[in-house]
Amino acid sequence: MTRTLIRGGLVVTAADETHADVLIEDGRIAALAAHGSAYGESWTADRTIDATGKYVIPGGVDAHTHMELPFGGTFASDTFETGTRAAAWGGTTTIVDFAVQTQGEALRAGLDAWYAKADANCAIDYAFHMIVSDVTEASLKELDLLVAEGITSFKLFMAYPGVFYSDDGQILRAMQRSAGNGGLIMMHAENGIAIDVLVQQALAEGRTDPRHHGEVRKVLLEAEATHRAIQLARVAGAPLYVVHVSAEEAVAELARARDQGLPVFGETCPQYLFLSTDNLAEPDFEGAKYVCSTPLRPAEHQAALWRGLRTDDLQVVSTDHCPFCFAGQKELGRGDFSRIPNGLPGVENRMDLLHQAVVDGHISRRRWIEIACAAPARMFGLYPRKGTIAPGADADVVVYDPHAEQVLSAETHHMNVDYSAYEGRRVTGRVETVLSRGEPVITEGEFTGRAGHGLYVPRGTCQYLN
Amino acid sequence: MTRTLIRGGLVVTAADETHADVLIEDGRIAALAAHGSAYGESWTADRTIDATGKYVIPGGVDAHTHMELPFGGTFASDTFETGTRAAAWGGTTTIVDFAVQTQGEALRAGLDAWYAKADANCAIDYAFHMIVSDVTEASLKELDLLVAEGITSFKLFMAYPGVFYSDDGQILRAMQRSAGNGGLIMMHAENGIAIDVLVQQALAEGRTDPRHHGEVRKVLLEAEATHRAIQLARVAGAPLYVVHVSAEEAVAELARARDQGLPVFGETCPQYLFLSTDNLAEPDFEGAKYVCSTPLRPAEHQAALWRGLRTDDLQVVSTDHCPFCFAGQKELGRGDFSRIPNGLPGVENRMDLLHQAVVDGHISRRRWIEIACAAPARMFGLYPRKGTIAPGADADVVVYDPHAEQVLSAETHHMNVDYSAYEGRRVTGRVETVLSRGEPVITEGEFTGRAGHGLYVPRGTCQYLN
Amino acid sequence: MTRTLIRGGLVVTAADETHADVLIEDGRIAALAAHGSAYGESWTADRTIDATGKYVIPGGVDAHTHMELPFGGTFASDTFETGTRAAAWGGTTTIVDFAVQTQGEALRAGLDAWYAKADANCAIDYAFHMIVSDVTEASLKELDLLVAEGITSFKLFMAYPGVFYSDDGQILRAMQRSAGNGGLIMMHAENGIAIDVLVQQALAEGRTDPRHHGEVRKVLLEAEATHRAIQLARVAGAPLYVVHVSAEEAVAELARARDQGLPVFGETCPQYLFLSTDNLAEPDFEGAKYVCSTPLRPAEHQAALWRGLRTDDLQVVSTDHCPFCFAGQKELGRGDFSRIPNGLPGVENRMDLLHQAVVDGHISRRRWIEIACAAPARMFGLYPRKGTIAPGADADVVVYDPHAEQVLSAETHHMNVDYSAYEGRRVTGRVETVLSRGEPVITEGEFTGRAGHGLYVPRGTCQYLN
Amino acid sequence: MTRTLIRGGLVVTAADETHADVLIEDGRIAALAAHGSAYGESWTADRTIDATGKYVIPGGVDAHTHMELPFGGTFASDTFETGTRAAAWGGTTTIVDFAVQTQGEALRAGLDAWYAKADANCAIDYAFHMIVSDVTEASLKELDLLVAEGITSFKLFMAYPGVFYSDDGQILRAMQRSAGNGGLIMMHAENGIAIDVLVQQALAEGRTDPRHHGEVRKVLLEAEATHRAIQLARVAGAPLYVVHVSAEEAVAELARARDQGLPVFGETCPQYLFLSTDNLAEPDFEGAKYVCSTPLRPAEHQAALWRGLRTDDLQVVSTDHCPFCFAGQKELGRGDFSRIPNGLPGVENRMDLLHQAVVDGHISRRRWIEIACAAPARMFGLYPRKGTIAPGADADVVVYDPHAEQVLSAETHHMNVDYSAYEGRRVTGRVETVLSRGEPVITEGEFTGRAGHGLYVPRGTCQYLN
Repeated sequence: MTRTLIRGGLVVTAADETHADVLIEDGRIAALAAHGSAYGESWTADRTIDATGKYVIPGGVDAHTHMELPFGGTFASDTFETGTRAAAWGGTTTIVDFAVQTQGEALRAGLDAWYAKADANCAIDYAFHMIVSDVTEASLKELDLLVAEGITSFKLFMAYPGVFYSDDGQILRAMQRSAGNGGLIMMHAENGIAIDVLVQQALAEGRTDPRHHGEVRKVLLEAEATHRAIQLARVAGAPLYVVHVSAEEAVAELARARDQGLPVFGETCPQYLFLSTDNLAEPDFEGAKYVCSTPLRPAEHQAALWRGLRTDDLQVVSTDHCPFCFAGQKELGRGDFSRIPNGLPGVENRMDLLHQAVVDGHISRRRWIEIACAAPARMFGLYPRKGTIAPGADADVVVYDPHAEQVLSAETHHMNVDYSAYEGRRVTGRVETVLSRGEPVITEGEFTGRAGHGLYVPRGTCQYLN
Repeated sequence: MTRTLIRGGLVVTAADETHADVLIEDGRIAALAAHGSAYGESWTADRTIDATGKYVIPGGVDAHTHMELPFGGTFASDTFETGTRAAAWGGTTTIVDFAVQTQGEALRAGLDAWYAKADANCAIDYAFHMIVSDVTEASLKELDLLVAEGITSFKLFMAYPGVFYSDDGQILRAMQRSAGNGGLIMMHAENGIAIDVLVQQALAEGRTDPRHHGEVRKVLLEAEATHRAIQLARVAGAPLYVVHVSAEEAVAELARARDQGLPVFGETCPQYLFLSTDNLAEPDFEGAKYVCSTPLRPAEHQAALWRGLRTDDLQVVSTDHCPFCFAGQKELGRGDFSRIPNGLPGVENRMDLLHQAVVDGHISRRRWIEIACAAPARMFGLYPRKGTIAPGADADVVVYDPHAEQVLSAETHHMNVDYSAYEGRRVTGRVETVLSRGEPVITEGEFTGRAGHGLYVPRGTCQYLN
Repeated sequence: MTRTLIRGGLVVTAADETHADVLIEDGRIAALAAHGSAYGESWTADRTIDATGKYVIPGGVDAHTHMELPFGGTFASDTFETGTRAAAWGGTTTIVDFAVQTQGEALRAGLDAWYAKADANCAIDYAFHMIVSDVTEASLKELDLLVAEGITSFKLFMAYPGVFYSDDGQILRAMQRSAGNGGLIMMHAENGIAIDVLVQQALAEGRTDPRHHGEVRKVLLEAEATHRAIQLARVAGAPLYVVHVSAEEAVAELARARDQGLPVFGETCPQYLFLSTDNLAEPDFEGAKYVCSTPLRPAEHQAALWRGLRTDDLQVVSTDHCPFCFAGQKELGRGDFSRIPNGLPGVENRMDLLHQAVVDGHISRRRWIEIACAAPARMFGLYPRKGTIAPGADADVVVYDPHAEQVLSAETHHMNVDYSAYEGRRVTGRVETVLSRGEPVITEGEFTGRAGHGLYVPRGTCQYLN
Repeated sequence: MTRTLIRGGLVVTAADETHADVLIEDGRIAALAAHGSAYGESWTADRTIDATGKYVIPGGVDAHTHMELPFGGTFASDTFETGTRAAAWGGTTTIVDFAVQTQGEALRAGLDAWYAKADANCAIDYAFHMIVSDVTEASLKELDLLVAEGITSFKLFMAYPGVFYSDDGQILRAMQRSAGNGGLIMMHAENGIAIDVLVQQALAEGRTDPRHHGEVRKVLLEAEATHRAIQLARVAGAPLYVVHVSAEEAVAELARARDQGLPVFGETCPQYLFLSTDNLAEPDFEGAKYVCSTPLRPAEHQAALWRGLRTDDLQVVSTDHCPFCFAGQKELGRGDFSRIPNGLPGVENRMDLLHQAVVDGHISRRRWIEIACAAPARMFGLYPRKGTIAPGADADVVVYDPHAEQVLSAETHHMNVDYSAYEGRRVTGRVETVLSRGEPVITEGEFTGRAGHGLYVPRGTCQYLN
């Protein structure tokens, strides 16, 4: 039995801020004791970490990543090995990635392929959602099996006709199924049919620069799809999780639904909170670095997203990490923004950017942990094993220095991508030490983990439904 | 140093459900350890409580009681001694009662009077809000002093003209002051000026029965006052806490404000969740037992209140405990409902009724603890000392048997009042043992506490403001 | 020159109620004169109609009829001859029917076919909207030509996949085109893709009765489509007219849009105002008589429709007249509600039913004329030639007896269909005399018109857009 | 019998635009005839006005004027003689002024005083509302009598404590009374109690300039009072007319109420549509010229007011004409904005400014006539005698040149005040000839009327209630 003791820190969870020592036994949190309590003082351990003046927080849970995703004829540039290592550097100890069904094939085949990609390669624990590209009688039956197996959430797309797109009938059927089996439908909510008309019109008129990517994917068409997804979920009697919400009007749709008590949830991402259409308009095709869908929005939408995070109309901040190098990948879309691979790197930056939001006064310290750790774990059936520091939980723990300063940069980051979406941004706060099930994977700023340490975690169902 | 160990229970807080042993040293939570962890197993204690199969929960925080309140020429029938003892029986370990300013006198005088009433009489810990009956230049200045002293919340009335009523100018000034000093305005939101017209009309027309109390205090006049209070708070730049919300339309006003990100909070009470105008209409003047303000509403409002509690548009459930005996007190209003003393007993029933709501599926177990313990503690600056079970917190702990059944009745309750508002109601769940700062005040269904154990607790400011 | 003089009546228009004599010269209103004015008294005429004690109102404009419509392998049972004659009996002097594009063919071909069907057959004047079944580059170009020709409104369907259905991209393109050419998109707003899933599920489960038609076409799916159509119109910068609104939630979407000042309009029909799902549930397959889409709703939706008509969130009441005989036509759907031809008779009943609404206090007398005559004429570019009584207008005039009583029945009606949707309903008010361009087509309850009197009327564009 | 014939104009009413000749007999509209109709051509008259190329419109109805109003120790500078003459110059042929109850005296006394002031002095017809300063049992009884006498609307103030202010109980009682007698409560909706606190604070802090008048009378406090008045009206079951709406948020409250079908109405004034806080901030105390209550708002509120006028959430544009000379009157408030007499001149400018709004595209031509003539006449029981051109109506007719240009200025206006609120503003459109009951009071730009021509018009009740 290995014992690790973290002494002297401020334990911050979604619920509490406690001046407590944390004792870890065999990869799990064994106990918490008040600083200076007689019992706490008596503890001994194999390894003691001094967290005086630091935060002791749960490892981050990034519920939306796309390692090695095939997209538009290329692949996201982070493998499970490089991507999970970078995650660890950034204080994230669990990712939930997306296995992808190939159209015409079984879900099983896609899932097995993703199991194989990740197996023995990950530095931290991981789980999977499933992208359902082909809603058929057969794939609907598979959903039940997957829920039983620990794949409890299924992503559908109202965008990308001809690729991932499901029509409203397919969506309704998948929702009906999830209403029965406890699964959670995750929705990419943009009216892709209408957007594709606008894309074709833009290209035909010679509006081919990256910024037109943002202009054709209109706010109203995100809000519309969000509203539609909510209504379909109501008809099906199913819960709904809307991914990467970026527009104020979409937040308003979620808020309206939640005011009615509907089980509707929303996620946003750091890029929507910290970047804007100003980035998409950067000259010399640099805007391509910021092409993702839903797109970046005018900066005035950010206030609504922050407010949504404060009012709990948005519950989760994930990264939608899906990096493509500028050289050779983003460049595929020169002269045609519709051919730019969609996606941004970010798995390493999330915890720091959200801590910066604490510093900036957007959210409280506890809310930081809630949206980055506890809520994603609860949403996707990982809590309390992941997402908190409590007796019995996995000892996924980050010692975080709230006063250290750093500058985000591709020069120094560990993601396998040739640019940073936050190049040159100065932030306050930095990961110091990261434990994954008690094992140190980052130790005072050094990577001390290994590919293969990370294990697959089957998930339970969403814990926000009674 | 005294040590108490609670073994084998499920620790339920607002945030987590943990299978953990709880170690108490010197009246505080010293540590939590996972069941079966080596460290936990090694613990020894002076007193060990077996909580196997039970919940271990924070003691309840009832943020709205009126012990010994003078009202309409009589006094609420529970003294601090009888009332706090009954609270302990019901699993509540902290009350926040209301000191009352007498019109024309200083706040100080009122506060000192209430200190004296409570001193050496309470079985559990207590704190005070202050009712401000007379907003003047002098009393506004006193507000600053009171905040510094730990009286951080101030109740104003838009009802009861000539008694507690403040006009909109007084309200605005008090809000401005609280915006500056960190205080929180608590509002009785009913348009009392308009209601009094309706009261006089009802009496003049011979509509004198208790049910007319409900009819004249109209839903729209609660919603109106709620809206007005919110707007005045916006003008002042101050937060707002609306007490005893009973009407769906009032919840809607709170929800609208909160969607905008305003620091607006709402409380409801068990009587609005479990009783209705049907009770007010009970024959033979029995309806008088249910006369309180805001009044009971038609039963269809209950669904909106439960929804508000689930969506966090309402944050706190308090009792507004203000008992008057049917014989001799409620009877003062025979022939004139306006002379019935306003108030219901309930301090002993709150934790059980809300647990019944868990059983009935209205709320989750964690939400039960949040609305009854953690949120009131946070709202009124008592957290994490009160309202949670975490290292360092006061050891106010309840061992709760979730499977025991009981029937609520005046025959068996401990409140000093001759009727129960919930007479004959069968509920599942029962308090077994209650610790107050580590001391057993209820031990397996016996009162083992004493008057004078309870201490006055100065409070910090509202913790829901950044 | 022929002169007709209508003396002594109360002239009721959308705007005014005037005690005036009406002078008609050569098929047009030449003058109105106050009763008893010297000039009015001096008038002479070839024909004088005594309207003392009667209303003198504009002839009705029914903006939504489907004479001879091919549907589900059969045809609506009223021809232009029988249908327009019945319209005249009911006080309607103009219909706007729908020419239908056959998928794969030009709009032109469809329009010419409908010109031919109507030509020389109509008892009253008529115009056409165009149903666009196939939004292509070619048909979009034709829209411009049709607007120039007086076909200024185009109906699209979000329902009926595989038949009339347009996807959101086609809808957007048609809206963009209409934004440019002044046309008005009329939308059948139901999410047909989702509905068809529910239809198939119902049939598969043996729920085949007519009432299931109402159950699968859910209120939420009408509201959703209404919302979506509004958002697409906003993206396109185009106005929108939603046909046959039946659900409270759909009215709410229109109201929200109109509060924002958007050029969004809504129509409802007498069947939604006077009938309900109770009719759909009539035994012995009688419910089939009431199968139409959008479907009849539970009776509680009626209040919202009346309110929408009063608040001008709904502007027009048309009939969607599309009759199928119970024998041989409706019966096609025995054992499979999805095969029941969709549609109800009503062109003859509209003016009377809406007058009954005046008697019942739902709407004012002037609003009756507005929603039944003036607003449809304005909406579809026929005003002031049609829809009012003013100097220069066509002399389409009805002398209406507001006190006569009648019982609606298939026994006595003139529509070519073997049942009445309002069988046995007693109403107050009755058409006495009807002039079409000054010619009497109904004279004191006798048909005095002829097939071929009615002329095609090219229309201008919507007059509610600045 | 005198006959006047207006030939060749475009008759514009709220409902129709008709190319028609207008025949006037004995002060009333006798007939309208289409240009070129045989009958029209045959007409002869004592006086013929050629309106070719001009509009023929109903005379304006200004439903909110304060001639000779005592306010703050001085009097509004226009007498009934000067004010009604100026009104005639501006194309207004009816005013509804406010008789004022003196606190402690009977309504009767106030009304008689105002009858006397106006009698034999007016150039155009006039009617009265009544300001109720003192809601008592006695004055409530008088309301019934006044309705019977043709005074059918009663103004209450939620502002001006100590002067005109009524508390919510008084308001409720007056509304209850009006629910019974058919009267219409007109509300000055500002929370005057709260505003007075802010006024005193501003003055105490030396913020004494006119612009602080706008700052202390906050938008939220207008919206709050509007909401409160609506709720009180709902409790009373009474209709409500809110005067001089100036804030977007207040319009939103009206819109919300109207969406629910409530009989709630709103008026705005030209000053809120064309002026803003920029004017209040004019240097050298010039801002005092623009001091009125509700105050001018930041310019961005104008869009909401125009939208409200288009969507019919606002129904009436009146002037609230209440002029005070800059010299000697407005100057009373140098050094203390609260002593500036509240009010602006405008009775002469309303029709022209609203025509300019037609030119600018804010409203249609018919809506211009509706908000300026027909709707105020309907709202206050004067229709169709006033507010339209129809057989039987009073021949209050304006021949309006839509192409003439003019510059508004104190140099050229006819109001008895030493400044123009619109000094130097160029507008298109000008009154040419004005008939009052058939008599020319302005003839091609000359005043041809006389004091005493104008008659008192008793009014019926509001015509927007069924």
